[in-house]
Amino acid sequence: MMNTNQVIKAPTGSELTCKGWQQEAAMRMLMNNLDPQVAENPDELVVYGGIGKAARNWESFHKIIATLKKLENDETLIVQSGKPVAVFKTHDHAPRVLIANSNIVPSWANWNHFYKLESEGLMMYGQMTAGSWIYIGAQGILQGTYLSFVEAGKKAFGSTDLSGRLILTGGMGGMSGAQPLAGKMAGAVTLVVEVERKRIERKINEGYCDYLVTDIDEALQLVNKYRQKREAVSIGLVGNCADVFPAIYEKGIVPDIVTDQTSAHDPINGYIPNGMCFEQALVLRKKDPKAYEEKAKATMGVHVQAMLDFQASGSEVFDYGNNIRAYAKETGVENAFDFPGFVPAYIRPLFCEGKGPFRWAALSGDPEDIYRTDRLVKEMFAEDESLVKWINMAQKMIQWQGLPSRICWLGYGDRHRFALEVNKLVATGEIKAPIVFGRDHLDSGSVASPNRETEGMKDGSDAVSDWPILNALLNTAGGASWVSVHHGGGVGMGYSQHAGQVIVADGTKEAAEKIKRVLITDPGMGVARHVDAGYDIAIETAKEKGIYIPMMDSEV
Amino acid sequence: MMNTNQVIKAPTGSELTCKGWQQEAAMRMLMNNLDPQVAENPDELVVYGGIGKAARNWESFHKIIATLKKLENDETLIVQSGKPVAVFKTHDHAPRVLIANSNIVPSWANWNHFYKLESEGLMMYGQMTAGSWIYIGAQGILQGTYLSFVEAGKKAFGSTDLSGRLILTGGMGGMSGAQPLAGKMAGAVTLVVEVERKRIERKINEGYCDYLVTDIDEALQLVNKYRQKREAVSIGLVGNCADVFPAIYEKGIVPDIVTDQTSAHDPINGYIPNGMCFEQALVLRKKDPKAYEEKAKATMGVHVQAMLDFQASGSEVFDYGNNIRAYAKETGVENAFDFPGFVPAYIRPLFCEGKGPFRWAALSGDPEDIYRTDRLVKEMFAEDESLVKWINMAQKMIQWQGLPSRICWLGYGDRHRFALEVNKLVATGEIKAPIVFGRDHLDSGSVASPNRETEGMKDGSDAVSDWPILNALLNTAGGASWVSVHHGGGVGMGYSQHAGQVIVADGTKEAAEKIKRVLITDPGMGVARHVDAGYDIAIETAKEKGIYIPMMDSEV
Ligand SMILES: NC(=O)c1ccc[n+]([C@@H]2O[C@H](COP(=O)([O-])OP(=O)(O)OC[C@H]3O[C@@H](n4cnc5c(N)ncnc54)[C@H](O)[C@@H]3O)[C@@H](O)[C@H]2O)c1
Ligand SMILES: NC(=O)c1ccc[n+]([C@@H]2O[C@H](COP(=O)([O-])OP(=O)(O)OC[C@H]3O[C@@H](n4cnc5c(N)ncnc54)[C@H](O)[C@@H]3O)[C@@H](O)[C@H]2O)c1
Repeated sequence: MMNTNQVIKAPTGSELTCKGWQQEAAMRMLMNNLDPQVAENPDELVVYGGIGKAARNWESFHKIIATLKKLENDETLIVQSGKPVAVFKTHDHAPRVLIANSNIVPSWANWNHFYKLESEGLMMYGQMTAGSWIYIGAQGILQGTYLSFVEAGKKAFGSTDLSGRLILTGGMGGMSGAQPLAGKMAGAVTLVVEVERKRIERKINEGYCDYLVTDIDEALQLVNKYRQKREAVSIGLVGNCADVFPAIYEKGIVPDIVTDQTSAHDPINGYIPNGMCFEQALVLRKKDPKAYEEKAKATMGVHVQAMLDFQASGSEVFDYGNNIRAYAKETGVENAFDFPGFVPAYIRPLFCEGKGPFRWAALSGDPEDIYRTDRLVKEMFAEDESLVKWINMAQKMIQWQGLPSRICWLGYGDRHRFALEVNKLVATGEIKAPIVFGRDHLDSGSVASPNRETEGMKDGSDAVSDWPILNALLNTAGGASWVSVHHGGGVGMGYSQHAGQVIVADGTKEAAEKIKRVLITDPGMGVARHVDAGYDIAIETAKEKGIYIPMMDSEV
Repeated sequence: MMNTNQVIKAPTGSELTCKGWQQEAAMRMLMNNLDPQVAENPDELVVYGGIGKAARNWESFHKIIATLKKLENDETLIVQSGKPVAVFKTHDHAPRVLIANSNIVPSWANWNHFYKLESEGLMMYGQMTAGSWIYIGAQGILQGTYLSFVEAGKKAFGSTDLSGRLILTGGMGGMSGAQPLAGKMAGAVTLVVEVERKRIERKINEGYCDYLVTDIDEALQLVNKYRQKREAVSIGLVGNCADVFPAIYEKGIVPDIVTDQTSAHDPINGYIPNGMCFEQALVLRKKDPKAYEEKAKATMGVHVQAMLDFQASGSEVFDYGNNIRAYAKETGVENAFDFPGFVPAYIRPLFCEGKGPFRWAALSGDPEDIYRTDRLVKEMFAEDESLVKWINMAQKMIQWQGLPSRICWLGYGDRHRFALEVNKLVATGEIKAPIVFGRDHLDSGSVASPNRETEGMKDGSDAVSDWPILNALLNTAGGASWVSVHHGGGVGMGYSQHAGQVIVADGTKEAAEKIKRVLITDPGMGVARHVDAGYDIAIETAKEKGIYIPMMDSEV
């Protein structure tokens, strides 16, 4: 089942190898997810986020590709946890691929049952954009991380200027690897603790991180030097957070912002326990998963306790979406939830306007196509200073990984207007091949995750997961190119349900129609979800933009 | 919020009051679900199966109706747990309504959290066809119950002739009320224990049950008399199963078939504990739900133990889909799962061919329209003796409830062929108004429920719920008139996820196109699901009928 001799790279250029651009896009984006520049561990089909995979196994991968190649423009391929299970005739305004990953009936929805199913070849972990073929590398999370840091600063010290400030965090993997660069973009000194040396090396090669150090004191000397100079810099420190965080605390240092993005969502195949070296941990994981799980959870307890200590000393502390508080609480850290998740703390107001991690990729493979879209963003949204600033920084600081792409948080109304303009540029040939528009499942209306995206909803509806399902059904009705429904992304098995969608702008009139439907309804469901929960910003947005909410209509 | 003064009846006839027949059909079927002839407790919007509701509350109900009345033919109404939350523009081949009911993120997916959400007005329990507007009264379950009894007989004593045999079961409510008539149709003497007298009276009025008795010995005398005469008859005995089953066992009587369909899926608002009279139970339920729940579960333990005792004495015993074994096991009946569920025991082979509880209703309100479809069934499937027999019995024995309707288990290939012919009869006016085609969520490819529909799957994939989600996405892609995704139906919160679809034959060319897609893909997903699990009958069906399964194609 191993793919020892094959490096996956998406074809580029404007020649079709499938029977239509939607199939071609699905194929290229699946392959792009496994591009060694993009994926964390392509040999095992792992894209990011612990064991988030793009296909169940290599046999399934090849069958998906082969099926996409012969799929007609009125057919739909059905993918169940990374395996192609059927093709049915639908119609040209229906999605070309429908995907469901890692969904388990609730009473069985835990990691143990998942791993049982996985070991029997019946399931894979789809994370969010791994199994739905719209991961675009570290950039995908970069803008969100940057926004969170800026908002945390704004809240903590009333200023978006983070120069001279220290951010302390953990994890430099697939998504967490965005942290050093995001912190730097925000102007801070960023210290990231990562247990696996190789991960830091990779981020240095990619230009996401400036320094690698192995010693706490050396790290703190660098921190001091750059804080004094008020110079933005990022430092990767090889170590376990549960060792390093308490050590820094003991020294009396109080970072301005403390968070964590280690793979704590998965205490068996993600998070690394302390009290042993990295290699020993890998051996224990294989030999005795039960013992490993216990040690990992205990380590999270220590890790979270240190974060609570920092909070008590005045740091702005938040959970960065890996569910570490829940596992720490399990091991007895009763007040683990004393620090908030990043969504209620900083992101929800954006969700109320339908804003979230929108992104696009150029199927041509040509960076010039993305630069053209960058110019379009700056033209169309010239009055949005921070967005223009974002595009300028992104161009300067982000290296391409796989197909050139751009992350850009746009909200209801802007997404479809922008995509329609891009579709025109594809039609005229100014952009050389179709552009693929997608988003994270962490978005305005596409996720229920009570320890993360829907933590602390105003009306108490955190755990209601009707919403992501309706989002997926509606995007299917609207004619997205592919639609997915996942369970367990971000925070692990049992803790979330969420949906994704991707839509292809191939320059045709049909694509424009689909864009006009899907890129309105997709963020529109986000606004509606927050209207229902009683958020004023969402209610205002719905009124202003004319989103029809029956319960707000006094005339019917 | 109570609807004290209003009786809901669907409009009938061939005049449109909405802007299209799909909206009209959704409206009439929602209203039909709450018709007092159809619903168990229409004042509280309860349709069947414990607290399975058609709309969140009366305000939501009226808003749904008002919104459907003005909904355009290219718009889609979004319904979240019985409340209309948004309308978006889609297109004419998309569903008119998308529904998600009772979905909860798995770690919170239990009755306690559900009731918390419900009490805060955030959720309702949709059961299966209650919240998806395609319940057709007791008939909906009648054929399935009949088939199960016949199959149980075949397995136990190698004959489909049940004359002189005794079936002992519990429950005479919404769906369980089909048991006395189904047992009679199968030729047996059927003794049904039901704790609420009124329920039995209702079934007698409806012609579903022959006798009401209040005394065990009187019941057993009737049983003996009719077994000796080999005459089919049904008897309702007022009592609690946990009292009556052991008492019958103590008398040394061994029924041929033993099962149960009390509302055990809900230990708080469904099942009635023993050791107190029915009215006392209702008081306790209000006063101390926690104590009630414990007593209810303990009662289930006694109830299941009696079923196990019958099994040990030679009865054919099966669980009839209310999850009573799981709750009994919780209270310490370790071997509760020693008797099987009815699906692995009798129904799965039918699922492998895409067969399941297909049904249709006549929007005209005119029984003649259903009689016309009955004739069509007998013409088109003349070679299928048992189907013809079923239609003949149904015509004779089933009273109409609300809109005239027919249940008829058809499989892959037959459903769409039949519906296309009906669509033609609607077009010519021979059938006076459109016909609505739907099915139970308990169907071939639309449910994951490890203690019921997916119990004991060949490959161990019982808890994999990617399948019902894919089913809903695909039916949405194909253009069903309304599509729904629910959680907790049948077996209660945490134990199931499932999907429904309804499609309207209004005689148009567009309806024919949609029928050709949806009534192929819907049972097609059922065949594909069982192919994936390795069932030979499903693999044969896929080959024979040309369902495309990529992993079976050696050429790609
Ligand atoms: N909130 C968000 O928007 C958001 C975004 C991205 C990721 N996440 C969450 O962050 C987590 C990480 O995602 P990822 O894609 O980077 O996963 P990943 O597995 O690629 O990277 C995690 C990194 O953490 C390191 N690590 C594990 N245990 C450690 C420990 N005890 N001390 C120090 N380092 C340790 C691992 O070596 C790895 O490099 C996931 O839980 C994910 O769901 C949240
Ligand atoms: N397998 C299937 O196809 C299938 C079909 C229908 C219903 N069911 C299941 O059967 C159950 C009943 O469904 P319903 O629609 O009839 O519900 P319902 O609530 O309308 O009826 C249940 C009946 O059981 C009675 N009852 C409760 N506790 C009792 C006890 N201890 N002794 C005797 N009677 C008792 C109630 O008074 C009520 O009349 C549900 O769990 C449902 O999911 C399964």
